[in-house]
Amino acid sequence: MTAMAMPTVQVLHMSGGLGEKSFANNSSTAKKAMMRVKPILEEGVNKMYCTNLPTIMKVADLGCSCGPNTLLLVSNIIDIVHETSLRLNVETPTFQFFLNDLFGNDFNSTFKSLPEFYRTLKQDTTCLINATPGTFYGTLFPANSIHFFHSSFSLHWLSQVPNLLGEEVKIGDDDKGNVHATSIFPPSYAKQFKQDFKQFLRSRYMELVPEGGMHLTFLGRYDTSEYISMPGLILVALNDMVSENLIEEEKLEHFNVPTYFATLEEVREILKEEGSFFSVERLESVKLSWDGSSLDEEGDKRFKDENERAEFITRNKRSVFEPICKAYFGEGIMDELFLRFKNKVIQFLPKLVDPLLVISLTKIA
Amino acid sequence: MTAMAMPTVQVLHMSGGLGEKSFANNSSTAKKAMMRVKPILEEGVNKMYCTNLPTIMKVADLGCSCGPNTLLLVSNIIDIVHETSLRLNVETPTFQFFLNDLFGNDFNSTFKSLPEFYRTLKQDTTCLINATPGTFYGTLFPANSIHFFHSSFSLHWLSQVPNLLGEEVKIGDDDKGNVHATSIFPPSYAKQFKQDFKQFLRSRYMELVPEGGMHLTFLGRYDTSEYISMPGLILVALNDMVSENLIEEEKLEHFNVPTYFATLEEVREILKEEGSFFSVERLESVKLSWDGSSLDEEGDKRFKDENERAEFITRNKRSVFEPICKAYFGEGIMDELFLRFKNKVIQFLPKLVDPLLVISLTKIA
Repeated sequence: MTAMAMPTVQVLHMSGGLGEKSFANNSSTAKKAMMRVKPILEEGVNKMYCTNLPTIMKVADLGCSCGPNTLLLVSNIIDIVHETSLRLNVETPTFQFFLNDLFGNDFNSTFKSLPEFYRTLKQDTTCLINATPGTFYGTLFPANSIHFFHSSFSLHWLSQVPNLLGEEVKIGDDDKGNVHATSIFPPSYAKQFKQDFKQFLRSRYMELVPEGGMHLTFLGRYDTSEYISMPGLILVALNDMVSENLIEEEKLEHFNVPTYFATLEEVREILKEEGSFFSVERLESVKLSWDGSSLDEEGDKRFKDENERAEFITRNKRSVFEPICKAYFGEGIMDELFLRFKNKVIQFLPKLVDPLLVISLTKIA
Repeated sequence: MTAMAMPTVQVLHMSGGLGEKSFANNSSTAKKAMMRVKPILEEGVNKMYCTNLPTIMKVADLGCSCGPNTLLLVSNIIDIVHETSLRLNVETPTFQFFLNDLFGNDFNSTFKSLPEFYRTLKQDTTCLINATPGTFYGTLFPANSIHFFHSSFSLHWLSQVPNLLGEEVKIGDDDKGNVHATSIFPPSYAKQFKQDFKQFLRSRYMELVPEGGMHLTFLGRYDTSEYISMPGLILVALNDMVSENLIEEEKLEHFNVPTYFATLEEVREILKEEGSFFSVERLESVKLSWDGSSLDEEGDKRFKDENERAEFITRNKRSVFEPICKAYFGEGIMDELFLRFKNKVIQFLPKLVDPLLVISLTKIA
């Protein structure tokens, strides 16, 4: 597998619109995850707010995607600050939000839902919503201008497919049916992630006001041979299609998914290296099964059987990964690919758990 | 004709995308007009810039629409400031642009063209582009946050269809084939315009930094019986279709185009009433024929004959007015409507001239 010379910025976006396959209609997993880490978000927002008490509070959501979660974050933050303002007996600030995602993101859908969203706000709330398209691995805002950054389910996307350093990515399951994470994420990917994440942290450091805060969640990986990643499983499904001559082997060899799922330790190491920029308030990981449930909910009754659960997972993952697969392989094989993917999901179901990394940072003034 | 109880904010947008009928592909008339008033824009930008010399210059374009003109304004302003910075031997500021239009505007198209646009900028230029969807007849930005506002071809759109005060709008041409402007713009429309324009000025006054500037151009009308307006001519075409039973009379009676074309005198009067907010640097009108040419270019060779010229005009006006007609009458009659419109254009061609009102204001500190 060699490098595909296409920066992520040009092809990556969630499936737009409001249709059956859209991200908007398949983002309940992300919502569940957001709810679970909400206490940490509250803690972060309150720390920043109580320290700075801005009259205009500027918040940016990086990798906002499209769909209902985008505005859920906005109302969550408004609610947190409202409540704290009441408690402190200070006036609620004017909110200015900046929704960021790559240039191809479907912002139009979000904008069309704004009139309805504005109607749901309390009468005395002034909330001004903007979009800021572009890559967050670089400058998006003027220096010292943002009070709080949020980013959810985005930082595991790399800025570009790395130059592979003579490495070979081993596709396919081994004798035991395992898909080794290491074969999907070779050292060049780790290097690219480190470079990207540092670039991200430095850009945000410039843009944050002193004592500004940041709440980040993204997918990590477990460093065990048991762990199966989403890009790994899609490559296995693609590899099966190569075996059956539905895809040319050479074509697959040049396909790369520009993601890296870091371990908690790797992230801790990077944050240590950038220690002069931020104080780390929280760095933890939460177990998240692919259907969005936490492990103690495993017996949840949303699904009749494993097939239904696998269908749910597949719709969800498809809304995220289809654009990048389609751009490379063409629309024609998408249904076949995700049917096979679903069967792989059923096969590996109990193993399909990711660590969701949760980080809370404060800019060192 | 009675009021249609639909706020402009929900239905008005230019035709999106990049297709044959899109505004993006039919906005050369607006571009020509922009070029003609560029010296006044330069004057306004330079006055604000030399007075304030901001290190971060925040500019908002209100009613940016979609298509190439949106980013043309951005590069025009950057060029003006670059040149002046060189002359003054000061560092060029970081630019933060806010592109505003109603919620239904096609921002996605503009965003997709940004990577290419950013590549055309000088290497040392930092230009951060945002979108701010919403109506400009209200708050869009925090107080004291914007250095310069631009608005082109937008302020003749009303915030809503006014409550008609027992007036009747006379549709149709008189004996001489004239379409009287007064019959299209009854007093309630004038009242609504005045209310909207004052709301606009007050909102911008709050949002501008002290000594901030504003450059506005929008369509006005000549106060003569000879003058034919675009909404007037579309109503005449619709009325013909009523005569031939292609549209129900009652249906047309409830249709309203939420625009008002003010006279220069009306605008002067409103600015005088709001005199404590702004000093008026410029208030003038430029003759603009419907094909975008100034009158001395009337012999321009873009068009083979009157039919070609009328087709050009129709495509242009259709990209602006079709969404609002379609929302009310349905897609089915649009081709027929604009064919008739084109024939009316041919019939009245020499009379199809609007005054483009050009206003330059500075916020009184």
